[in-house]
Amino acid sequence: MRILIPFKANNPKSRLSSILSEEERKELARLMLLDVIDAAKPFGEIKVVCPSELDVEGVEVVVDTSDLNTTVNKVMDEAPLAVIMSDLPLLSEEVLKRFFETEGDVVVAPGRKGGTNMLLVRKRGFRVSYHFGSFFKHLEMARKMGMKAKIFDSFYSSVDIDDESDLLELMMHGSGKKSYEFLRKIGFSVSFEETPRLERRVFMQP
Amino acid sequence: MRILIPFKANNPKSRLSSILSEEERKELARLMLLDVIDAAKPFGEIKVVCPSELDVEGVEVVVDTSDLNTTVNKVMDEAPLAVIMSDLPLLSEEVLKRFFETEGDVVVAPGRKGGTNMLLVRKRGFRVSYHFGSFFKHLEMARKMGMKAKIFDSFYSSVDIDDESDLLELMMHGSGKKSYEFLRKIGFSVSFEETPRLERRVFMQP
Repeated sequence: MRILIPFKANNPKSRLSSILSEEERKELARLMLLDVIDAAKPFGEIKVVCPSELDVEGVEVVVDTSDLNTTVNKVMDEAPLAVIMSDLPLLSEEVLKRFFETEGDVVVAPGRKGGTNMLLVRKRGFRVSYHFGSFFKHLEMARKMGMKAKIFDSFYSSVDIDDESDLLELMMHGSGKKSYEFLRKIGFSVSFEETPRLERRVFMQP
Repeated sequence: MRILIPFKANNPKSRLSSILSEEERKELARLMLLDVIDAAKPFGEIKVVCPSELDVEGVEVVVDTSDLNTTVNKVMDEAPLAVIMSDLPLLSEEVLKRFFETEGDVVVAPGRKGGTNMLLVRKRGFRVSYHFGSFFKHLEMARKMGMKAKIFDSFYSSVDIDDESDLLELMMHGSGKKSYEFLRKIGFSVSFEETPRLERRVFMQP
């Protein structure tokens, strides 16, 4: 199985800019990519696609400045193929085992807000259309093409890190992940005194 | 299998009060309860626990004014027992089939913000502690008692309707549900022109 992970290197995770500096967001994005790679490695040959140079140990990186849909559709006919987003740090081998075992010509894993967090395509001819409710567009496209579509129902793959509420999920469920350890290191934790919420300790300059 | 559904009848879903009137929130809460009952019915004998009188066709309703933990712990030793929250309208027979087939002395389904949206207990002696990160407390309690705990990983059971972003999920994924039809009837829909967002048509008085 080929596994494609698109990665946006510039100004990543801008919706977190109120609580993380640009450098911190870059490092978080890089470490989440590594977390996804760690989880996905047992299941196939990983290729990271990125608009600029990137060094990831042991993984092929292809530089491609096209938009996401163009980038992914270029290789869609290499099916069977999985496309996994790079901001899903709660993925694990256990979650992905169930994903790759799910039958269907097309398997779609929903994110919040109608997104497609993971996609598995086993037949040639399918084309992706990310953004604006892509989860529903991908199910409809499979139906139109006579391909059997299956929904992959997972909480952990539904949590893409986009805003502060997602960061809370990472800090609660992400123990052991590289991205989690980084956030801890820079002062983040979770307060469980009331409804769980994110906290950040600010380190004083010496 | 006994299935307990706790239901809060008074001032439900207060975090939605900026976009729904109290009457609308009450009706939404009631219809979500019916959606959960519809999904759970094939799997056991349902009992709804509620602080005030409530009429639900074909389902036993027990009036109990205690807090949630006390209410649930009173019947915990009737295990095997499932506790399912009443605000999970995206549950379906398919999701619950997988839930009830999950092995373990204790099965916990996470919600966002550390909640326990569904709980399945197969051994006597377990006690619940909802609120303040209950998902982690329930896993820890199972570990302490030497019970085998399993996490039920599901996007659909993770969506409890709490705020506006959850309502968006219901409007996107809930087609056919009673709660969804009600929201449509009172003017809600989803705009897919950009990132999906909730819209409400306001009906003019004649």
